[in-house]
Amino acid sequence: MEAMLQQSRAMCPFLKRTSPTTLRTLSTATRPSTSPGGGTMSNLQTIARRCPVMSKALAVQSARLNGTKRFTSCAAGVTGMPSFCVPTGKRALHTTGGHPASLASGGYEKNERGNPNLVNPLRSSPAAPGVAVRGPRPAAPTTERFNYDEFYNVELEKKHKDKSYRYFNNINRLAKEFPRAHTASAEERVTVWCSNDYLGMGRNPHVLNSMHKTLDTYGAGAGGTRNISGHNQHAIALESTLAKLHDKEAALVFSSCYVANDATLATLGSKMPDCVILSDSLNHASMIQGIRHSGAKKMVFKHNDMEDLEAKLASLPLGTPKIIAFESVYSMCGSIAPIEKICDLAEKYGAITFLDEVHAVGMYGPHGAGVAEHLDYEAYASQDTATPQSTKGTVQDRIDIITGTLGKAYGCVGGYIAGSAAMVDTIRSLAPGFIFTTSLPPATMAGADTAIQYQAQQPRDRVLQQLHTRAVKAAFKDLDIPVIPNPSHIVPLLVGSAELAKKASDKLLEEHGIYVQAINYPTVPRGEERLRITPTPGHVKHLRDHLVGAVQAVWNDLGLKRTSDWQAQGGFVGVGVEGAEAANLPIWEDAQLGLQAGETLEAAVAREFKNAAAEATAPLLKAATPLVEKAHSGMESTPVGVAA
Amino acid sequence: MEAMLQQSRAMCPFLKRTSPTTLRTLSTATRPSTSPGGGTMSNLQTIARRCPVMSKALAVQSARLNGTKRFTSCAAGVTGMPSFCVPTGKRALHTTGGHPASLASGGYEKNERGNPNLVNPLRSSPAAPGVAVRGPRPAAPTTERFNYDEFYNVELEKKHKDKSYRYFNNINRLAKEFPRAHTASAEERVTVWCSNDYLGMGRNPHVLNSMHKTLDTYGAGAGGTRNISGHNQHAIALESTLAKLHDKEAALVFSSCYVANDATLATLGSKMPDCVILSDSLNHASMIQGIRHSGAKKMVFKHNDMEDLEAKLASLPLGTPKIIAFESVYSMCGSIAPIEKICDLAEKYGAITFLDEVHAVGMYGPHGAGVAEHLDYEAYASQDTATPQSTKGTVQDRIDIITGTLGKAYGCVGGYIAGSAAMVDTIRSLAPGFIFTTSLPPATMAGADTAIQYQAQQPRDRVLQQLHTRAVKAAFKDLDIPVIPNPSHIVPLLVGSAELAKKASDKLLEEHGIYVQAINYPTVPRGEERLRITPTPGHVKHLRDHLVGAVQAVWNDLGLKRTSDWQAQGGFVGVGVEGAEAANLPIWEDAQLGLQAGETLEAAVAREFKNAAAEATAPLLKAATPLVEKAHSGMESTPVGVAA
Repeated sequence: MEAMLQQSRAMCPFLKRTSPTTLRTLSTATRPSTSPGGGTMSNLQTIARRCPVMSKALAVQSARLNGTKRFTSCAAGVTGMPSFCVPTGKRALHTTGGHPASLASGGYEKNERGNPNLVNPLRSSPAAPGVAVRGPRPAAPTTERFNYDEFYNVELEKKHKDKSYRYFNNINRLAKEFPRAHTASAEERVTVWCSNDYLGMGRNPHVLNSMHKTLDTYGAGAGGTRNISGHNQHAIALESTLAKLHDKEAALVFSSCYVANDATLATLGSKMPDCVILSDSLNHASMIQGIRHSGAKKMVFKHNDMEDLEAKLASLPLGTPKIIAFESVYSMCGSIAPIEKICDLAEKYGAITFLDEVHAVGMYGPHGAGVAEHLDYEAYASQDTATPQSTKGTVQDRIDIITGTLGKAYGCVGGYIAGSAAMVDTIRSLAPGFIFTTSLPPATMAGADTAIQYQAQQPRDRVLQQLHTRAVKAAFKDLDIPVIPNPSHIVPLLVGSAELAKKASDKLLEEHGIYVQAINYPTVPRGEERLRITPTPGHVKHLRDHLVGAVQAVWNDLGLKRTSDWQAQGGFVGVGVEGAEAANLPIWEDAQLGLQAGETLEAAVAREFKNAAAEATAPLLKAATPLVEKAHSGMESTPVGVAA
Repeated sequence: MEAMLQQSRAMCPFLKRTSPTTLRTLSTATRPSTSPGGGTMSNLQTIARRCPVMSKALAVQSARLNGTKRFTSCAAGVTGMPSFCVPTGKRALHTTGGHPASLASGGYEKNERGNPNLVNPLRSSPAAPGVAVRGPRPAAPTTERFNYDEFYNVELEKKHKDKSYRYFNNINRLAKEFPRAHTASAEERVTVWCSNDYLGMGRNPHVLNSMHKTLDTYGAGAGGTRNISGHNQHAIALESTLAKLHDKEAALVFSSCYVANDATLATLGSKMPDCVILSDSLNHASMIQGIRHSGAKKMVFKHNDMEDLEAKLASLPLGTPKIIAFESVYSMCGSIAPIEKICDLAEKYGAITFLDEVHAVGMYGPHGAGVAEHLDYEAYASQDTATPQSTKGTVQDRIDIITGTLGKAYGCVGGYIAGSAAMVDTIRSLAPGFIFTTSLPPATMAGADTAIQYQAQQPRDRVLQQLHTRAVKAAFKDLDIPVIPNPSHIVPLLVGSAELAKKASDKLLEEHGIYVQAINYPTVPRGEERLRITPTPGHVKHLRDHLVGAVQAVWNDLGLKRTSDWQAQGGFVGVGVEGAEAANLPIWEDAQLGLQAGETLEAAVAREFKNAAAEATAPLLKAATPLVEKAHSGMESTPVGVAA
């Protein structure tokens, strides 16, 4: 079979140049048949009809199937021909009641606990489930027209078939009960173990206070783009704070970091002549889209593989502009990039560095500026002392473009870039995704500014986050539950099956009141499906014990593979791989966490909480660090939230 | 000169196939020269060196210029060759002190009234202005490397040169003094006349109350993507409200309508086989980007020109999927699309319609659903009565995809699409710009939901907006001040020069305390520069009188062209064109505004305000319309802002 495909590939000039993805799309996308019998045919079938070899095979098959007016899947393997005939002709969608694609609004929501697959009854349904779903204007003579409704239904059916169709969980995180939430029922509580509000800043009283004040004084929305009435002191102050946080000349705020990454890479890649963008293979979708939108040449290097990156850099002329795009913390596996080595390579080969710190800002470094800051912990920590060290030549200083989010550890929403004034001004002046969109609301910008400054003042939240992470990872290790080893705050539990990952997630929610989303394809590769747990400072001992017990129960119930099982089959994505843990020691070192020799994790946690309680009543921004002082200097004359 | 260029085009196969834009980019983008003398050369020069004809001309010129090691602009018109040599070699940027591109953060802000061009002193400036600005690591051996800093500076210098460089105004809109704002100084007041908070919903007490409650109960941010812990009752309620507002099966919320347009068009255009997108020539940047990102074939039809659209549709096979993308209200000129005719053409040629109602939602139609709803005013208004008419076959019903914003008339931030359940579910399942980004904050979604329902209940705000718009347009007409005629709420004053438009805007701000942003290229074509005024319900008589007097003074001071001047030269963009006004009667008719026969505008305004005062204390959502009842039905069990 495989040999036949190889042979077909070699023979057929069309197949040779066509990627498997394209073939798959062609074989599943359909158009109305122009044959008198009606029905649909896949685009691949349409193309096949033009093929001198295949057209004959199809004609023979068509004659054989006479009696049904519709194309069905053809028998695999007409001699010498690839078996690319596909089952779209089966129209399973229109005859199975399992997953009607034309759902009412909310049909993909899990509103009912215990009935995760329940779909709401159709609102103004054109037809009951199980009956052919037709377009909104069925009376129109659509015989020869493109069938848009069928296109949507086929696309959705593909998602159902490959188990990548997503059902959203209705989770309402409660500010006063962090990290707990209520479900569709306001009375029912679950503990959220997969939020990206990593430090609980979304319910921080200073942040909320700042937002309330700004809302009252400046209203709900910005009312315009940055150029047309949407620029204000909150944008100025926030961008100033961000620039100082990252020790850069300037920063620029976007609707989200998705937009920041997309707009910045698309703009630079399209404007720099012959630009090449080198992209880590695990990069986030926003960077992948930005690179695609730039039209620039893209070279994907193996995840965190410096040899591969160097080989690719070396293959390019020195004078060619190059952008190395990568992340500090990769959110789905928790791995951390060798940032300093990437800077070395960038300098050697005349590239610039584009570092996404989305899953690191707020959580690494003495001021929460991210992993780049963390790598020169002492130098940056000394900025708050009487004898600050120079930060010139530090890793963060060497990075050309840092991007980050206000929507995760900073608890709000929005994204940004930071770098040289000229770079930032160029993006500000050229990127449509920045220029032609409404600014973030003043209250959002004020809240984010407060969150950044709060985290810049003290590392307590990130220390607690790390201590809780260590405790959870250690407990899972003791129970032989497979944590993908990594040096960060992410706790990915390997499941290795989309169906089982979803089942595990559902069981945790329904039987244990614990919400951990299953992470399936396309967010992670097939076979690497996982549960992704993110401990926060709020996940205190009894919540952690509850989680560990629940996971253990679910692992037993579903018979999921343990670390030793993965090890027995040679290890997988670091699980059960000898030396993987030693190679992934936490980037937050014991000393940085204030862990004393021989002190247990729980003792350290208790000490941190005691300190926290003592400081809880201290007003924000009193013990101003130099960073905070600097960040505030521009705001003195126009204090946030003070009505004139 | 023109003839020579024509001749060159005919002769040179390279030029023939190259657009003026590409030539301009090539001629201004630079790369380090590989010649031993260093310096930079434009990409066009690099390419020219490969040309058998041009390379000789360049060699001759190079010899002539011997003595300076740098390329300078070549003399125009080597015989038979186009004059595409460009002045990049002048490096004017590095020797003029006018606009140093490497500004500190905030350097593009107008923090000082009266000194709009003042730039802040450089923060951590590598060199004083007037001295060559170099890269951050000048010691590095960058001879042969791409000069990124120079690239940024050249791009910025281009913006300065063509007067499209943007300076942002620091405008802080005050909720309690709407439509007034303070500038960088908290004491100084200006009246904002160009905000897109069209109805003042950003300071509506019901909206703010909803946001305050939600903030306290559910915190600042959503804490995740919709798939991973960021889906909640606020998203469900808002999408349900939006679907019902537009009489569609489903809706989907995005970070912004920029993202909604971009993601939806990019997804549909790339997934539908051989899709063609027909795009109005005045479409917003977000749609243009979405179409570009889709990779689909694009056909631009002349603005609102049905003959051109039909010709293009007719040129395509009936079975080809086609999307007609257009807006209802075009925000920079206020024109309104012939939506019904576009629906007719779409049906005739088997296309679907994609209608951007961004500048119409909240402001047109009996429930604020937009122009599409407005076109069947009676049918939709009857939904609130005991005898609702069928809305089947109405213009809104016929539109396949409606997109809108929560950041303009609804006063918050965010965007959405509405349409069939299958279409919405397809975008939800496939669009990276939706999938891989943090959800809008719960408070934002709750505030927007309240704003939509508030506006759906009564048309008072939109009626006042229209009355104020009519009054302002009439006053300008009396003074011979050139309003570009249109049937909407936009009041565009034609200036026709980037420099003068900016001067007029600056004078209004500095001398009259009125903020109206100048709209220059690329937002409008060169030569069509304008001031764009947007009256709101809050622009009461004394504010309007102040505006009209100030504009009259500025028009006198700067000697700007009057309507009669434009008329004398044959008219331009509708100004001074006979019949243009008659062809642009307001879409809100007298009867819809409640204007009584013989009643003056000011009398009608006074009556509306009197009614408003009587209703001001009435609680929201008491006199629930069917729309509102429907929209609320799903929320009863989980009321917003109520802690359990």
